[in-house]
Amino acid sequence: MKILVIGAGGAVGKAIVAELGARHEIVEAGRNSGAFRVDVLDPASVHRLFADVGSLDAVVMAVGRVHFGPLGEMTAEQFRSGLDDKLMGQVNVVLAGQHRLNDGGSFTLTSGILSAEPIRDGVNATAVNAAVDGFVRAAAIELPRGLRINAVSPTVLAESMATYGPYFRGFEPAPAARVALAYSRSVEGAQTGRIYTVW
Amino acid sequence: MKILVIGAGGAVGKAIVAELGARHEIVEAGRNSGAFRVDVLDPASVHRLFADVGSLDAVVMAVGRVHFGPLGEMTAEQFRSGLDDKLMGQVNVVLAGQHRLNDGGSFTLTSGILSAEPIRDGVNATAVNAAVDGFVRAAAIELPRGLRINAVSPTVLAESMATYGPYFRGFEPAPAARVALAYSRSVEGAQTGRIYTVW
Repeated sequence: MKILVIGAGGAVGKAIVAELGARHEIVEAGRNSGAFRVDVLDPASVHRLFADVGSLDAVVMAVGRVHFGPLGEMTAEQFRSGLDDKLMGQVNVVLAGQHRLNDGGSFTLTSGILSAEPIRDGVNATAVNAAVDGFVRAAAIELPRGLRINAVSPTVLAESMATYGPYFRGFEPAPAARVALAYSRSVEGAQTGRIYTVW
Repeated sequence: MKILVIGAGGAVGKAIVAELGARHEIVEAGRNSGAFRVDVLDPASVHRLFADVGSLDAVVMAVGRVHFGPLGEMTAEQFRSGLDDKLMGQVNVVLAGQHRLNDGGSFTLTSGILSAEPIRDGVNATAVNAAVDGFVRAAAIELPRGLRINAVSPTVLAESMATYGPYFRGFEPAPAARVALAYSRSVEGAQTGRIYTVW
Protein backbone atom coordinates (compact mmCIF):
# COMPACT_ATOMS: atom_id res chain seq x y z
CA MET A 1 0.00 0.00 0.00
CA LYS A 2 0.96 3.63 -0.47
CA ILE A 3 0.18 5.39 2.82
CA LEU A 4 0.21 9.11 3.57
CA VAL A 5 1.13 9.87 7.20
CA ILE A 6 0.26 13.44 8.21
CA GLY A 7 2.12 14.48 11.33
CA ALA A 8 4.91 12.03 10.58
CA GLY A 9 7.43 14.08 12.55
CA GLY A 10 5.67 13.75 15.93
CA ALA A 11 6.23 11.05 18.56
CA VAL A 12 3.26 8.99 17.40
CA GLY A 13 3.88 9.79 13.73
CA LYS A 14 7.44 8.45 13.88
CA ALA A 15 6.22 5.24 15.53
CA ILE A 16 3.52 4.84 12.86
CA VAL A 17 6.11 5.28 10.11
CA ALA A 18 8.35 2.69 11.80
CA GLU A 19 5.48 0.20 12.14
CA LEU A 20 3.86 0.58 8.70
CA GLY A 21 7.09 1.40 6.84
CA ALA A 22 8.30 -2.16 7.30
CA ARG A 23 5.61 -3.38 4.91
CA HIS A 24 4.38 -0.38 2.90
CA GLU A 25 5.42 2.70 0.95
CA ILE A 26 5.11 5.70 3.30
CA VAL A 27 4.67 9.32 2.23
CA GLU A 28 5.55 11.63 5.13
CA ALA A 29 3.80 14.98 5.50
CA GLY A 30 3.70 17.59 8.22
CA ARG A 31 3.50 21.26 9.09
CA ASN A 32 7.26 21.68 9.48
CA SER A 33 8.80 18.37 8.41
CA GLY A 34 8.36 15.53 5.93
CA ALA A 35 8.68 15.29 2.14
CA PHE A 36 5.37 17.21 1.80
CA ARG A 37 4.38 20.27 3.85
CA VAL A 38 0.74 20.86 4.71
CA ASP A 39 -1.37 23.05 6.96
CA VAL A 40 -4.39 20.83 7.60
CA LEU A 41 -6.26 23.83 9.02
CA ASP A 42 -6.29 25.30 5.49
CA PRO A 43 -8.54 23.35 3.06
CA ALA A 44 -6.61 24.76 0.07
CA SER A 45 -3.34 23.41 1.48
CA VAL A 46 -4.96 20.00 1.99
CA HIS A 47 -6.23 19.93 -1.60
CA ARG A 48 -2.73 20.79 -2.87
CA LEU A 49 -1.25 17.98 -0.78
CA PHE A 50 -3.53 15.37 -2.35
CA ALA A 51 -2.84 16.71 -5.84
CA ASP A 52 0.92 16.59 -5.23
CA VAL A 53 1.01 13.14 -3.61
CA GLY A 54 -1.16 11.41 -6.21
CA SER A 55 -2.59 7.90 -5.88
CA LEU A 56 -3.07 6.73 -2.26
CA ASP A 57 -4.41 3.68 -0.45
CA ALA A 58 -4.51 5.09 3.07
CA VAL A 59 -4.23 8.33 5.00
CA VAL A 60 -3.16 8.33 8.64
CA MET A 61 -3.44 11.49 10.73
CA ALA A 62 -1.37 11.95 13.87
CA VAL A 63 -2.07 15.65 14.35
CA GLY A 64 -4.15 18.01 16.44
CA ARG A 65 -3.93 20.38 19.35
CA VAL A 66 -6.55 21.07 21.99
CA HIS A 67 -6.78 23.67 24.74
CA PHE A 68 -5.90 22.57 28.28
CA GLY A 69 -7.03 24.84 31.10
CA PRO A 70 -9.62 25.33 33.85
CA LEU A 71 -13.26 25.63 32.80
CA GLY A 72 -13.65 28.55 35.18
CA GLU A 73 -11.20 30.67 33.20
CA MET A 74 -11.92 29.37 29.70
CA THR A 75 -12.86 31.78 26.92
CA ALA A 76 -14.92 30.97 23.86
CA GLU A 77 -11.81 31.60 21.74
CA GLN A 78 -9.77 29.05 23.71
CA PHE A 79 -12.54 26.47 23.39
CA ARG A 80 -12.85 27.15 19.69
CA SER A 81 -9.10 26.72 19.15
CA GLY A 82 -9.32 22.98 19.76
CA LEU A 83 -12.27 22.64 17.40
CA ASP A 84 -10.41 24.57 14.71
CA ASP A 85 -7.25 22.51 15.11
CA LYS A 86 -7.72 18.86 16.11
CA LEU A 87 -11.28 18.48 14.80
CA MET A 88 -11.45 20.69 11.68
CA GLY A 89 -7.89 19.79 10.66
CA GLN A 90 -8.76 16.11 10.44
CA VAL A 91 -12.22 16.80 8.96
CA ASN A 92 -10.59 18.89 6.22
CA VAL A 93 -8.39 15.94 5.27
CA VAL A 94 -11.35 13.55 5.01
CA LEU A 95 -13.58 16.00 3.11
CA ALA A 96 -10.84 16.46 0.49
CA GLY A 97 -9.42 12.94 0.57
CA GLN A 98 -12.72 11.09 0.06
CA HIS A 99 -12.54 12.08 -3.61
CA ARG A 100 -8.85 11.13 -3.94
CA LEU A 101 -8.27 7.79 -2.22
CA ASN A 102 -8.14 4.61 -4.25
CA ASP A 103 -11.15 2.27 -4.00
CA GLY A 104 -11.08 0.40 -0.69
CA GLY A 105 -8.74 2.96 0.85
CA SER A 106 -8.87 4.08 4.48
CA PHE A 107 -8.63 7.10 6.75
CA THR A 108 -7.32 6.74 10.29
CA LEU A 109 -7.82 9.72 12.58
CA THR A 110 -6.52 10.45 16.07
CA SER A 111 -8.87 10.90 19.02
CA GLY A 112 -7.91 10.36 22.68
CA ILE A 113 -8.85 8.79 26.00
CA LEU A 114 -10.33 12.02 27.37
CA SER A 115 -13.46 11.53 25.26
CA ALA A 116 -14.34 8.75 27.71
CA GLU A 117 -12.36 9.75 30.83
CA PRO A 118 -12.68 13.45 31.64
CA ILE A 119 -9.95 15.09 33.72
CA ARG A 120 -9.55 18.50 35.34
CA ASP A 121 -8.60 21.16 32.74
CA GLY A 122 -9.66 18.77 29.96
CA VAL A 123 -13.11 20.04 28.95
CA ASN A 124 -11.98 21.09 25.50
CA ALA A 125 -10.10 17.83 24.92
CA THR A 126 -13.12 15.73 25.92
CA ALA A 127 -15.47 17.67 23.62
CA VAL A 128 -13.05 17.66 20.67
CA ASN A 129 -12.16 13.98 20.97
CA ALA A 130 -15.83 13.05 21.34
CA ALA A 131 -16.55 15.01 18.16
CA VAL A 132 -13.74 13.19 16.31
CA ASP A 133 -15.20 9.85 17.44
CA GLY A 134 -18.67 10.93 16.32
CA PHE A 135 -17.41 12.13 12.96
CA VAL A 136 -15.76 8.76 12.35
CA ARG A 137 -18.85 6.72 13.31
CA ALA A 138 -21.08 8.80 11.03
CA ALA A 139 -18.72 9.22 8.07
CA ALA A 140 -18.22 5.44 7.97
CA ILE A 141 -21.79 4.84 6.79
CA GLU A 142 -21.59 7.41 3.98
CA LEU A 143 -18.17 6.86 2.40
CA PRO A 144 -18.43 5.36 -1.11
CA ARG A 145 -16.25 2.87 -3.07
CA GLY A 146 -15.43 0.70 -0.04
CA LEU A 147 -13.58 3.53 1.65
CA ARG A 148 -13.13 2.98 5.39
CA ILE A 149 -12.62 5.37 8.31
CA ASN A 150 -11.51 4.69 11.89
CA ALA A 151 -9.90 6.53 14.77
CA VAL A 152 -7.20 5.59 17.25
CA SER A 153 -7.90 6.82 20.78
CA PRO A 154 -4.67 6.60 22.78
CA THR A 155 -4.13 7.14 26.49
CA VAL A 156 -1.36 9.56 27.50
CA LEU A 157 1.93 8.76 25.75
CA ALA A 158 4.84 7.50 27.84
CA GLU A 159 6.99 9.91 25.82
CA SER A 160 4.77 12.85 26.87
CA MET A 161 4.67 12.23 30.61
CA ALA A 162 7.22 14.96 31.33
CA THR A 163 4.73 17.49 29.97
CA TYR A 164 1.32 15.94 30.50
CA GLY A 165 1.97 13.72 33.53
CA PRO A 166 0.43 16.19 36.01
CA TYR A 167 -2.85 16.17 34.09
CA PHE A 168 -2.96 12.35 33.95
CA ARG A 169 -2.21 11.18 37.51
CA GLY A 170 -3.15 7.53 37.86
CA PHE A 171 -3.40 6.94 34.11
CA GLU A 172 -1.24 4.14 32.72
CA PRO A 173 0.81 5.64 29.87
CA ALA A 174 1.42 3.78 26.60
CA PRO A 175 4.64 3.98 24.59
CA ALA A 176 4.23 5.39 21.07
CA ALA A 177 5.30 2.05 19.56
CA ARG A 178 2.32 0.35 21.24
CA VAL A 179 -0.07 3.10 20.11
CA ALA A 180 1.24 2.66 16.55
CA LEU A 181 -0.06 -0.91 16.50
CA ALA A 182 -3.64 0.42 16.60
CA TYR A 183 -3.01 2.48 13.46
CA SER A 184 -1.78 -0.71 11.81
CA ARG A 185 -4.99 -2.53 12.87
CA SER A 186 -7.01 0.23 11.23
CA VAL A 187 -4.99 0.49 7.99
CA GLU A 188 -4.30 -3.19 7.47
CA GLY A 189 -7.59 -4.50 8.89
CA ALA A 190 -11.05 -4.46 7.30
CA GLN A 191 -13.26 -2.69 9.86
CA THR A 192 -14.84 0.73 9.50
CA GLY A 193 -16.43 3.17 11.94
CA ARG A 194 -14.28 1.79 14.75
CA ILE A 195 -12.60 3.69 17.58
CA TYR A 196 -9.50 1.67 18.47
CA THR A 197 -8.77 2.45 22.11
CA VAL A 198 -5.22 2.05 23.42
CA TRP A 199 -5.70 2.12 27.18
CA MET B 1 -36.71 28.13 41.24
CA LYS B 2 -36.10 30.93 38.77
CA ILE B 3 -35.30 29.24 35.44
CA LEU B 4 -34.00 30.83 32.24
CA VAL B 5 -35.19 28.99 29.11
CA ILE B 6 -33.19 29.95 26.01
CA GLY B 7 -35.03 28.99 22.84
CA ALA B 8 -38.37 29.26 24.62
CA GLY B 9 -40.20 29.96 21.37
CA GLY B 10 -39.35 26.66 19.67
CA ALA B 11 -41.39 23.45 19.74
CA VAL B 12 -39.29 21.95 22.56
CA GLY B 13 -38.89 25.30 24.31
CA LYS B 14 -42.63 25.81 24.55
CA ALA B 15 -43.09 22.32 25.98
CA ILE B 16 -40.33 22.98 28.56
CA VAL B 17 -42.01 26.23 29.59
CA ALA B 18 -45.35 24.40 29.94
CA GLU B 19 -43.78 21.61 32.03
CA LEU B 20 -41.57 23.69 34.33
CA GLY B 21 -43.80 26.76 34.40
CA ALA B 22 -46.38 24.88 36.44
CA ARG B 23 -44.01 24.85 39.43
CA HIS B 24 -41.36 27.54 38.81
CA GLU B 25 -40.73 31.10 37.68
CA ILE B 26 -39.71 30.98 34.01
CA VAL B 27 -37.72 33.65 32.17
CA GLU B 28 -38.13 33.21 28.42
CA ALA B 29 -35.30 34.17 26.06
CA GLY B 30 -34.70 33.66 22.38
CA ARG B 31 -33.23 35.03 19.19
CA ASN B 32 -36.52 36.46 17.94
CA SER B 33 -38.99 35.95 20.77
CA GLY B 34 -39.29 35.95 24.56
CA ALA B 35 -38.97 38.66 27.20
CA PHE B 36 -35.19 38.71 26.64
CA ARG B 37 -33.48 38.60 23.23
CA VAL B 38 -30.10 36.91 22.91
CA ASP B 39 -27.75 35.70 20.19
CA VAL B 40 -26.01 32.79 21.93
CA LEU B 41 -23.40 32.74 19.14
CA ASP B 42 -22.16 36.12 20.43
CA PRO B 43 -20.46 35.90 23.87
CA ALA B 44 -21.11 39.60 24.48
CA SER B 45 -24.85 39.10 23.93
CA VAL B 46 -24.81 36.15 26.36
CA HIS B 47 -23.05 38.22 29.03
CA ARG B 48 -25.63 40.98 28.60
CA LEU B 49 -28.45 38.45 28.99
CA PHE B 50 -27.13 37.22 32.34
CA ALA B 51 -26.59 40.77 33.56
CA ASP B 52 -30.14 41.73 32.56
CA VAL B 53 -31.88 38.63 33.97
CA GLY B 54 -30.10 38.68 37.35
CA SER B 55 -30.26 35.88 39.92
CA LEU B 56 -30.93 32.41 38.45
CA ASP B 57 -31.24 28.84 39.69
CA ALA B 58 -31.22 27.06 36.34
CA VAL B 59 -30.56 27.62 32.66
CA VAL B 60 -32.17 25.40 30.04
CA MET B 61 -31.07 25.58 26.40
CA ALA B 62 -33.32 24.37 23.60
CA VAL B 63 -31.33 25.85 20.74
CA GLY B 64 -28.91 24.87 18.04
CA ARG B 65 -28.71 24.23 14.32
CA VAL B 66 -26.54 21.69 12.54
CA HIS B 67 -25.81 21.08 8.86
CA PHE B 68 -27.68 18.26 7.14
CA GLY B 69 -26.28 17.04 3.82
CA PRO B 70 -24.24 14.34 2.09
CA LEU B 71 -20.65 13.84 3.24
CA GLY B 72 -19.58 13.63 -0.39
CA GLU B 73 -20.61 17.24 -1.05
CA MET B 74 -19.85 18.73 2.35
CA THR B 75 -17.57 21.75 2.62
CA ALA B 76 -15.47 22.71 5.62
CA GLU B 77 -17.65 25.79 6.03
CA GLN B 78 -20.82 23.73 6.18
CA PHE B 79 -19.30 21.40 8.76
CA ARG B 80 -18.07 24.35 10.80
CA SER B 81 -21.54 25.97 10.79
CA GLY B 82 -22.90 23.30 13.13
CA LEU B 83 -19.95 23.67 15.49
CA ASP B 84 -20.40 27.43 15.55
CA ASP B 85 -24.13 27.21 16.20
CA LYS B 86 -25.31 24.23 18.27
CA LEU B 87 -22.00 23.57 20.05
CA MET B 88 -20.42 27.01 20.56
CA GLY B 89 -23.80 28.63 21.26
CA GLN B 90 -24.41 26.33 24.22
CA VAL B 91 -20.75 26.46 25.33
CA ASN B 92 -20.93 30.26 25.34
CA VAL B 93 -23.89 30.14 27.73
CA VAL B 94 -22.10 27.81 30.15
CA LEU B 95 -18.79 29.71 30.05
CA ALA B 96 -20.62 32.93 30.97
CA GLY B 97 -23.29 31.43 33.21
CA GLN B 98 -20.93 29.45 35.48
CA HIS B 99 -20.06 32.74 37.17
CA ARG B 100 -23.69 33.88 37.42
CA LEU B 101 -25.83 30.95 38.58
CA ASN B 102 -26.84 30.66 42.22
CA ASP B 103 -25.07 27.97 44.28
CA GLY B 104 -26.45 24.55 43.42
CA GLY B 105 -27.84 25.80 40.11
CA SER B 106 -27.94 23.77 36.91
CA PHE B 107 -27.38 23.94 33.18
CA THR B 108 -29.35 21.68 30.84
CA LEU B 109 -28.13 21.53 27.24
CA THR B 110 -29.65 19.92 24.16
CA SER B 111 -27.88 17.13 22.28
CA GLY B 112 -29.61 14.55 20.07
CA ILE B 113 -29.99 10.90 19.15
CA LEU B 114 -27.63 11.16 16.17
CA SER B 115 -24.61 11.19 18.49
CA ALA B 116 -25.36 7.50 19.03
CA GLU B 117 -27.31 6.57 15.88
CA PRO B 118 -25.72 7.98 12.71
CA ILE B 119 -27.92 8.47 9.65
CA ARG B 120 -27.25 9.39 6.03
CA ASP B 121 -26.59 13.16 5.69
CA GLY B 122 -26.06 13.40 9.45
CA VAL B 123 -22.26 13.51 9.82
CA ASN B 124 -22.27 17.05 11.16
CA ALA B 125 -25.13 16.34 13.56
CA THR B 126 -23.40 13.25 14.95
CA ALA B 127 -20.11 15.09 15.51
CA VAL B 128 -21.76 18.17 17.05
CA ASN B 129 -24.07 16.20 19.35
CA ALA B 130 -21.17 13.97 20.44
CA ALA B 131 -19.19 17.12 21.27
CA VAL B 132 -22.10 18.50 23.32
CA ASP B 133 -22.30 15.20 25.24
CA GLY B 134 -18.53 15.29 25.84
CA PHE B 135 -18.61 18.89 26.97
CA VAL B 136 -21.31 18.05 29.53
CA ARG B 137 -19.48 15.00 30.91
CA ALA B 138 -16.24 16.95 31.33
CA ALA B 139 -17.67 20.25 32.58
CA ALA B 140 -19.60 18.38 35.28
CA ILE B 141 -16.39 17.50 37.15
CA GLU B 142 -15.05 21.08 37.13
CA LEU B 143 -18.07 23.23 37.96
CA PRO B 144 -17.81 24.81 41.44
CA ARG B 145 -20.40 25.65 44.14
CA GLY B 146 -22.51 22.56 43.56
CA LEU B 147 -23.41 23.66 40.04
CA ARG B 148 -24.67 20.83 37.87
CA ILE B 149 -24.73 20.27 34.10
CA ASN B 150 -26.65 17.72 32.02
CA ALA B 151 -27.90 17.31 28.47
CA VAL B 152 -31.14 16.04 27.02
CA SER B 153 -30.68 13.92 23.90
CA PRO B 154 -34.04 13.60 22.12
CA THR B 155 -34.97 11.46 19.17
CA VAL B 156 -36.71 13.18 16.26
CA LEU B 157 -39.69 15.25 17.41
CA ALA B 158 -43.18 14.16 16.40
CA GLU B 159 -43.81 17.84 15.62
CA SER B 160 -40.85 17.89 13.18
CA MET B 161 -41.68 14.80 11.17
CA ALA B 162 -43.04 16.83 8.24
CA THR B 163 -39.56 18.29 7.76
CA TYR B 164 -37.18 15.66 9.16
CA GLY B 165 -39.17 12.47 8.62
CA PRO B 166 -37.28 11.48 5.44
CA TYR B 167 -33.96 11.58 7.36
CA PHE B 168 -35.34 9.47 10.21
CA ARG B 169 -37.10 6.53 8.55
CA GLY B 170 -37.74 3.83 11.13
CA PHE B 171 -37.08 6.09 14.09
CA GLU B 172 -39.86 6.35 16.66
CA PRO B 173 -40.61 10.07 17.10
CA ALA B 174 -41.32 11.62 20.52
CA PRO B 175 -43.78 14.44 21.15
CA ALA B 176 -42.24 17.63 22.55
CA ALA B 177 -44.23 17.23 25.77
CA ARG B 178 -42.51 13.89 26.42
CA VAL B 179 -39.07 15.36 25.62
CA ALA B 180 -39.78 18.19 28.08
CA LEU B 181 -39.99 15.66 30.92
CA ALA B 182 -36.27 14.95 30.53
CA TYR B 183 -35.46 18.64 31.03
CA SER B 184 -37.52 18.50 34.21
CA ARG B 185 -35.53 15.45 35.41
CA SER B 186 -32.34 17.41 34.86
CA VAL B 187 -33.46 20.70 36.46
CA GLU B 188 -35.45 19.24 39.36
CA GLY B 189 -33.24 16.18 39.93
CA ALA B 190 -29.82 16.01 41.59
CA GLN B 191 -27.59 14.31 39.01
CA THR B 192 -24.76 15.90 37.06
CA GLY B 193 -22.79 14.90 33.96
CA ARG B 194 -25.79 12.93 32.70
CA ILE B 195 -27.07 12.61 29.14
CA TYR B 196 -30.84 12.01 29.43
CA THR B 197 -31.83 10.13 26.33
CA VAL B 198 -35.42 10.32 25.09
CA TRP B 199 -35.67 7.46 22.64
